[in-house]
Amino acid sequence: MTRFDRITIVGLGLIGGSLGMAIKRRRLARVVGFSRSAATVRRAKACGAIDVGVTDLRRAVAGADLVVLATPVDAIVPTARRLARWMRPGAVLTDVGSTKGGIVAGLDRGLPRGIAFVGAHPLTGSEQRGIDAAQPDLFTGAVCVLTPTAQTSSRTLAHVRALWRGVGAQVIEMSPREHDRTLAGTSHLPHLLAYCLAQTVDANTLPRTPQSFLDTTRIAKSDPDLWDDIFVTNRAALLPAMDVFEGEWRRLRALIARSNRSALRRALGQAKRRRDALNDS
Amino acid sequence: MTRFDRITIVGLGLIGGSLGMAIKRRRLARVVGFSRSAATVRRAKACGAIDVGVTDLRRAVAGADLVVLATPVDAIVPTARRLARWMRPGAVLTDVGSTKGGIVAGLDRGLPRGIAFVGAHPLTGSEQRGIDAAQPDLFTGAVCVLTPTAQTSSRTLAHVRALWRGVGAQVIEMSPREHDRTLAGTSHLPHLLAYCLAQTVDANTLPRTPQSFLDTTRIAKSDPDLWDDIFVTNRAALLPAMDVFEGEWRRLRALIARSNRSALRRALGQAKRRRDALNDS
Repeated sequence: MTRFDRITIVGLGLIGGSLGMAIKRRRLARVVGFSRSAATVRRAKACGAIDVGVTDLRRAVAGADLVVLATPVDAIVPTARRLARWMRPGAVLTDVGSTKGGIVAGLDRGLPRGIAFVGAHPLTGSEQRGIDAAQPDLFTGAVCVLTPTAQTSSRTLAHVRALWRGVGAQVIEMSPREHDRTLAGTSHLPHLLAYCLAQTVDANTLPRTPQSFLDTTRIAKSDPDLWDDIFVTNRAALLPAMDVFEGEWRRLRALIARSNRSALRRALGQAKRRRDALNDS
Repeated sequence: MTRFDRITIVGLGLIGGSLGMAIKRRRLARVVGFSRSAATVRRAKACGAIDVGVTDLRRAVAGADLVVLATPVDAIVPTARRLARWMRPGAVLTDVGSTKGGIVAGLDRGLPRGIAFVGAHPLTGSEQRGIDAAQPDLFTGAVCVLTPTAQTSSRTLAHVRALWRGVGAQVIEMSPREHDRTLAGTSHLPHLLAYCLAQTVDANTLPRTPQSFLDTTRIAKSDPDLWDDIFVTNRAALLPAMDVFEGEWRRLRALIARSNRSALRRALGQAKRRRDALNDS
């Protein structure tokens, strides 16, 4: 079984902080945490997310078996390229970015000799952000997608799989492209719809906003700094998912405009059966 | 204070059944329930939603102080026109329909002398349906919108207000047009988006569907027989709400396609502030 001596987490937000807490609680390794902000490092230390915190990237990664990049998506490739030269040969680099195509393309080749990378994305989180929202059981029962390529060795994959299984996640594998297409539909499109709905409807005209509106727009509370990044970096998969959505939207719109109740009822019934088939628990 | 001797509920589904339970539990009146289905009448009786159940509409409404129409939206006007002639002079007729323009226009005038109507819509429910999903506290703390017009007497309004306050609802008043416009945005548009999303995304490709997808599509489990009716009868307000949504959708789409992160982040930030301002409790 893979054992880690020292894991370094770069970026101590909700995901990085929660991962540190989970590793420490399960005693999987000693956790070194990096943030550019000394205040964040102090908070991470105080809440038990890391054993050692540093604001110097070189010191953070030197000697680690495994380095986990938990920065915003668009910082992952440049940060990884910068820090890889300071990692010890044989160490593994991974990330938690919500889109995978660009990250994997940027890190699959060209890292220093002896440094291996494989992408990962734990499908969890919350509309809250930052180290103060971190929780040690965030990954328990969650799915974590690994996105190996032809470059990925089985040793590298086993290391990163061991980390995520170790913190309680169910690990699956997909190609980066399949990951991005799947998440475009099941996560990015719902977020985009929630933002559009929250922006265009004035829900304050009633003393209590209907539960349907609150539920469908809850994820519009998510961090805009995270989501502009996800929408843009995954636009190659998101725009086609938007096209498919628009096709159905226009079809239903035409049925409503023409008062074609029977065809409309059939369409709604199909959608309901698809939704009923999903596991809600 | 308004007292009722006998309230007749026409239609014993989720709303009609729950209303009967709430009236009986609070001892507001004797409840007569009508359904065309003898099996539904029996179930309503068995679960304590009604005191007396009948399958004969004339017998159901004769002698009632208040008749509440809780049928599907498109059955309300024809059913009301049919039964009003059997009501006793001085009795009040109301409904629980989810769209109000057509119903109020159809019943505001032309009822027999001595029979007064005012529209109502309790903003509650669930994605479940039928008498078996009925619950006596469905209206506790819910908002109920009454839609009086220039034809509505203060006595009629007071009667229907007393009913809904009596079962624990917060009563507000709007014009039928204002009601339909408000609900188009805060309820009908979210339902339509949920149906479109559930229909166009295959969420079964992951071992666990992301919570964001489950939340935004939960209301696609709603009854298609109810919602084809709501979408079509409220199309005059729903189509303009769809236009406004589409405008924002196209704007964000263009920003994503052009990778304009700063404008995209500002737009998402505005939507988030609007959503954060709503009361979630």
